[in-house]
Amino acid sequence: MDFTKLARKYQTPLYVYDFDYIRERFDSVKEAFRARKSLVCYALKANSNLSVLKHLATLGAGCDCVSAGEVKRALLAGVAKYKIIFSGVGKDDGEIEFALKEDILMLNIESEAELKRVEKIAENLKVTARISIRVNPDVDAKTHPYISTGLKKNKFGVDINTAKKLYIYCKNSPFLEPIGIHCHIGSQILDIAPYRDATAVTAELLRSLKALEIDIKFFDVGGGVGIRYKDEVTIEPYNFAQAVLANLSGTDVTIVCELGRFLVGNSGYLLTKVLYEKHNGERRFVIVDAAMNDLIRPSLYDAYHEIEAVDKNGGGTLADVVGPICESGDFLAKDVILPPLEHGDLLVVKSAGAYGFSMSSNYNSRLRAAEVAVESGKERLIRRREEFEDLVRLETEYLEGADEENR
Amino acid sequence: MDFTKLARKYQTPLYVYDFDYIRERFDSVKEAFRARKSLVCYALKANSNLSVLKHLATLGAGCDCVSAGEVKRALLAGVAKYKIIFSGVGKDDGEIEFALKEDILMLNIESEAELKRVEKIAENLKVTARISIRVNPDVDAKTHPYISTGLKKNKFGVDINTAKKLYIYCKNSPFLEPIGIHCHIGSQILDIAPYRDATAVTAELLRSLKALEIDIKFFDVGGGVGIRYKDEVTIEPYNFAQAVLANLSGTDVTIVCELGRFLVGNSGYLLTKVLYEKHNGERRFVIVDAAMNDLIRPSLYDAYHEIEAVDKNGGGTLADVVGPICESGDFLAKDVILPPLEHGDLLVVKSAGAYGFSMSSNYNSRLRAAEVAVESGKERLIRRREEFEDLVRLETEYLEGADEENR
Repeated sequence: MDFTKLARKYQTPLYVYDFDYIRERFDSVKEAFRARKSLVCYALKANSNLSVLKHLATLGAGCDCVSAGEVKRALLAGVAKYKIIFSGVGKDDGEIEFALKEDILMLNIESEAELKRVEKIAENLKVTARISIRVNPDVDAKTHPYISTGLKKNKFGVDINTAKKLYIYCKNSPFLEPIGIHCHIGSQILDIAPYRDATAVTAELLRSLKALEIDIKFFDVGGGVGIRYKDEVTIEPYNFAQAVLANLSGTDVTIVCELGRFLVGNSGYLLTKVLYEKHNGERRFVIVDAAMNDLIRPSLYDAYHEIEAVDKNGGGTLADVVGPICESGDFLAKDVILPPLEHGDLLVVKSAGAYGFSMSSNYNSRLRAAEVAVESGKERLIRRREEFEDLVRLETEYLEGADEENR
Repeated sequence: MDFTKLARKYQTPLYVYDFDYIRERFDSVKEAFRARKSLVCYALKANSNLSVLKHLATLGAGCDCVSAGEVKRALLAGVAKYKIIFSGVGKDDGEIEFALKEDILMLNIESEAELKRVEKIAENLKVTARISIRVNPDVDAKTHPYISTGLKKNKFGVDINTAKKLYIYCKNSPFLEPIGIHCHIGSQILDIAPYRDATAVTAELLRSLKALEIDIKFFDVGGGVGIRYKDEVTIEPYNFAQAVLANLSGTDVTIVCELGRFLVGNSGYLLTKVLYEKHNGERRFVIVDAAMNDLIRPSLYDAYHEIEAVDKNGGGTLADVVGPICESGDFLAKDVILPPLEHGDLLVVKSAGAYGFSMSSNYNSRLRAAEVAVESGKERLIRRREEFEDLVRLETEYLEGADEENR
């Protein structure tokens, strides 16, 4: 990819996504599950740009959504409603009503209280809500505590006994139709064993529900398959599929998986320009025009992103790559080796396709970056850079209002 | 404050700011420095809502800005240009040019490379840039590592010898006019000693510059004065002023300070409604409609915010207050005591006036909250709640563009 040309044309900081890579990744997952009916959902919290969604929709992806905003994005981008799942521990009444009216595939229920709420709203709307229940298998995904979700101490899902009780409750309700079973144990998982363990637990539940004549059609194994940021040994789609399928012999369910980072993480690059080099005591700082508001993963999760100087050769020295934001927590990398750099030099932050732009903010009144897609050698803008007017649009009219009052 | 009424009228999650409290806090600082010429600047990264800025501008505040976006906000809200300072380690060319053209009070320089850049841009514009230099006094502010800024290992400022060298360089440049000296050692500081130490270092530099006939008019002591979130014993404005003034006898500089959190932190409340109560194993979760995208301080800094149930009495039990976002890092509080709660109950998250809304994002495609000001018993909207259209405004046209290409 010609990063220099892209940076010149669209300025920096800039997010660039390789749509060909996303296609390859999606196809590899579909291929891994080809022996069974499968629905590969894209977990759009990783990167919810409408053009990314449309690209995946065209490939056949469904969507795993965690807010009404995400469901609306999926629909707007052309994802078929029967391929949309709505998950999340905190759906409010308006969101539930919206999802039921839009007639999406199913709502993924995370607590007894939520199930009752959905039932009540479905009753008011005179519809039957298709649901799945998220089972918390109490399996340790061995990842960062902030993104581990399958342990009892986490807020997600319900334990296996509660799940069974809720399924029976659904069976007796005219407003609830249990069609799915779901578990999701975390994010950036590199070990296959937790998947095998979690699926074994849920497959057992599936069989016991069958015995109760509760007919589950969708077996949702969640996502969280890790990617390579540095030198991680990752799980191959084939092995992921086999770990799941090994527990499902003799069943006739459609396999659903929800992959976000796996599909888009390594498709993305954050381009940023060097503003200044600076030495404070022993430390070398490379100050760049991207900051924690653009990419918060290093600050929030202590995450590693490889950073490379574009068109620079020669030996390097240790440096911290930091942004313009006024706190010491604003860094993109610490102790990385970089060649000597000058004002205007271009750096590329890799593996920035997931949880990059989607977590970005306007902290320090910084304008959010532009996003560009590259497909078959051609690039196009998919979100324009913010301008100052975008920053204050929802505030200016009230400032004027205050003016009038004071006159 | 009638939180129930405000939540009903404006919905939740909602930020509410007490403008009377902000006035009291501002006046207390002005009063503490009344023996000297002083300029109390508001560090608007804490909360940059235009109406908050206008309120402070009316009281006489200047602004400490860290991006062109912040300078623009300050100007738009009516802050006098001669009271605006532009700080930050990573000003880009466009920002420097903008600040020089707007003729603000001064640019706060953080590195030699930046100084040269400012000189060059001033030369191109045929103006003289008024500057101050940020001195890093290598003093430990004893606060969270992410918000400690006065140590040698931080990216901020230059050491005292470099500062002296740069002042002499400025003296000999027709495009640079050194009028200020600056240091800022961190944020949420509770101990007066680091201020005394840092000011002593900078005051010594001030005197040696005087001897070199470099006429410094503004002595900027930074900010970072901590507030009470839980049970912290905080620094009184009077003591803060005395610690600074003790080092400045016999000088005739205008004292500048840059307070953000101190002025607005405890003016703010985040109102949020309970969606569900849930017990997973031993743990009790209160799931609310605000999340880490609304207030990231608990996740990012492990920060404590007091949370109170509105209009609820009786004994409580330990609970985690968590949001709807799909990660375990999404919490507002852990292990706090709350009474039994039901769907629709109102909670108030306190001390949310600083680094609350200003750090908020659209993560999980959540819409950012509305903001309300309360002044003399009357409330008014100062930023309307985001709608779905605001979320996708900068993307939809490019989605359509893609459509046409595919036809």
